[in-house]
Amino acid sequence: MEFKSLTPYGEAIRMASGLRINVRESYVSVAESVGRYCSRDVVSPVDFPEADRSAVDGIALRYEDSLSASRSNPIQLSLVGEVRIGDSPAFRINRGECAIVYTGSPIPEGANAVLMKEDASIGKSMVSVYRQMKKFQNISRAGEDLKRGDTIIKRGSRIMPWHLPAFIESGIDKVPVMDAEIGIVSTGTEIVRGLVKNSSAPMLEAMISRMGLKSAFYGNVEDDESRIRSVIEGMKSDIIIVTGGSGPSSQDLVHDIIASNGQLIFHGVRMKPGRTTGLGMMDGKPVFMISGLPVAALIAFENIIDPAIRSWFGMKSLERRTRRGYLTRSIFNNENMRMFVRVRMFEEDGKTMVEPMRTTGSGVINSVISADGYLVIEENSEGYPEGAEVDVLEIGDGL
Amino acid sequence: MEFKSLTPYGEAIRMASGLRINVRESYVSVAESVGRYCSRDVVSPVDFPEADRSAVDGIALRYEDSLSASRSNPIQLSLVGEVRIGDSPAFRINRGECAIVYTGSPIPEGANAVLMKEDASIGKSMVSVYRQMKKFQNISRAGEDLKRGDTIIKRGSRIMPWHLPAFIESGIDKVPVMDAEIGIVSTGTEIVRGLVKNSSAPMLEAMISRMGLKSAFYGNVEDDESRIRSVIEGMKSDIIIVTGGSGPSSQDLVHDIIASNGQLIFHGVRMKPGRTTGLGMMDGKPVFMISGLPVAALIAFENIIDPAIRSWFGMKSLERRTRRGYLTRSIFNNENMRMFVRVRMFEEDGKTMVEPMRTTGSGVINSVISADGYLVIEENSEGYPEGAEVDVLEIGDGL
Repeated sequence: MEFKSLTPYGEAIRMASGLRINVRESYVSVAESVGRYCSRDVVSPVDFPEADRSAVDGIALRYEDSLSASRSNPIQLSLVGEVRIGDSPAFRINRGECAIVYTGSPIPEGANAVLMKEDASIGKSMVSVYRQMKKFQNISRAGEDLKRGDTIIKRGSRIMPWHLPAFIESGIDKVPVMDAEIGIVSTGTEIVRGLVKNSSAPMLEAMISRMGLKSAFYGNVEDDESRIRSVIEGMKSDIIIVTGGSGPSSQDLVHDIIASNGQLIFHGVRMKPGRTTGLGMMDGKPVFMISGLPVAALIAFENIIDPAIRSWFGMKSLERRTRRGYLTRSIFNNENMRMFVRVRMFEEDGKTMVEPMRTTGSGVINSVISADGYLVIEENSEGYPEGAEVDVLEIGDGL
Repeated sequence: MEFKSLTPYGEAIRMASGLRINVRESYVSVAESVGRYCSRDVVSPVDFPEADRSAVDGIALRYEDSLSASRSNPIQLSLVGEVRIGDSPAFRINRGECAIVYTGSPIPEGANAVLMKEDASIGKSMVSVYRQMKKFQNISRAGEDLKRGDTIIKRGSRIMPWHLPAFIESGIDKVPVMDAEIGIVSTGTEIVRGLVKNSSAPMLEAMISRMGLKSAFYGNVEDDESRIRSVIEGMKSDIIIVTGGSGPSSQDLVHDIIASNGQLIFHGVRMKPGRTTGLGMMDGKPVFMISGLPVAALIAFENIIDPAIRSWFGMKSLERRTRRGYLTRSIFNNENMRMFVRVRMFEEDGKTMVEPMRTTGSGVINSVISADGYLVIEENSEGYPEGAEVDVLEIGDGL
């Protein structure tokens, strides 16, 4: 039995995005937050620096006192104290006075510039100032780096290592992140019997972790409608992926389970590989159906599951770069499908060449591990002739 | 006290790369291997598929028997058996015979094509063949995906989720990966006393984990030469990073500790930020010295530590993309330093504009979290005028 009709790719994405699925929010430690997506805008609760601080080791003074200073005509100031990092100076700097400070020391009241120690000669009670200063010179002003209320990171953005200093310096020790468990169950008697290996589920778990979400594998289940249904019903996950049994035939059980116990949103997509991809709702949870074959599962994950989840949760997409090149041979789309053609890229005579790889077989692992990118051919395109200039979506090495 | 001389950036990289530092090798499970770097070429130990297999549900036959078949003039074959996935068929297909097979079933001896079941009419003992077949049509040939000895991934490449199916299908359950512990110790009495937060160490740990290596934090140590030395000497790490105390002055203790107990390779680099970066060897281990200020620490990690380690271990660099744009204002390099200028990028009148951010202060967190990329200005460049077209190294969102 074949699909009665296939849903165009764009329409499948629109139908998926139209669902309202809520994300959970968790607070995690700063160190654990890297790679996760912020569930709300994080703003600085404080000014940083929280007070004016010296940016150098030197002499805090009133800049007005230095106006005529030069190396040949130094000015003398009385040394009234020293301020170490973390001190709260009890004295103030009046006209004609100064104090020793260090990088990071708070600026004593009254002072409004810091002379670098190289530009001074420091005695026991007097300092010679060799240089004219400007107001606030060598002072990091309170809030100059982050003001209270400044956004550190926006909702839906991915937390990167360089966000950590801003969290830590502004006193944030728990970060609000999007949280969801994506549960995977693999169907197939041949997998349960050990005749075929389940190589898709571990790959899908790694892809989920790359989205900053949690994965859970609920095991391999034989092709038995009531067993599959009871595993799905027992899953604690927020979102479910069922691999295998995603075809349209009567031996493919998953579409019936979803249709009888919930609602099919779409099943069968005008894409290749990934044609048997489907989405339904059961018990208020989205249930994706995808092929158990690794390449079809990967393409379905990247192009249906990932964008659907990101649209539900408001997560930014991972940036993917494209690279232009020239086709080494023609490639046809005679099936009115959105095709994801794995390609190799290489340089020849100063031109970037794009070589389509064999596209038969959605289990063809080799085409994925040795591809440099994907050429996406739209449903309504007939393909490209040899020599055509095309944009390739690079595969990349970022997790 | 200032640096007597600063090492040019390229020279520092050459000096670091010239060291011979060995990487350790570990074998980890397939699931744990994602994001790590292969320590040797991994080749398939088997052909995959290990035998000819059917690519469809249908009828295994000898293609020669189908040569005149058509829907109006079907050919009759005797049905001699059925081969399920995982079976080892005991019978062979002779001229005039056929067998039922499924996607993934081994092909019985003698058969050399599989007719899709839609193109047959299957009776109890006879099958009507409605279509002419080609040799090996709908058969996945043994080794067609991966041949024994084919490279799955090369030494120094990063393991991505899509490598897992190839490992699993070819029976590899432990993957050889590069292993090293990078230990961090942070110096600074003001950090130990809690007056200043250590926001660099957690960021560095996340950067190390992004290299697929292990990090270990050995704590904050006050500015005391013997204490710092004893912590460094007690570290089990393969590579050591000391934050803070990296300056050239007599209060900066790290360079003396390395010089007295080992050997300084370089200290003080013609780069900004990151000028105080250094590298030495103690007990046969590389010891990096970097600023404790987060932005300087980040730039030093990305541009000195990361490339040095990758050169020692033979790890591929993470791909970084560049984007061209036009400077909104001039930017000068009057210090003969390699400058890493954080920039924002935006579109205006169809042009990509590049706006340099304030560059003072290597602790300026805000410039990192809101930058879109870096403009690198070489030591020997005087900078760029307003409107100049420049290449910006994008920051990206890949871990």
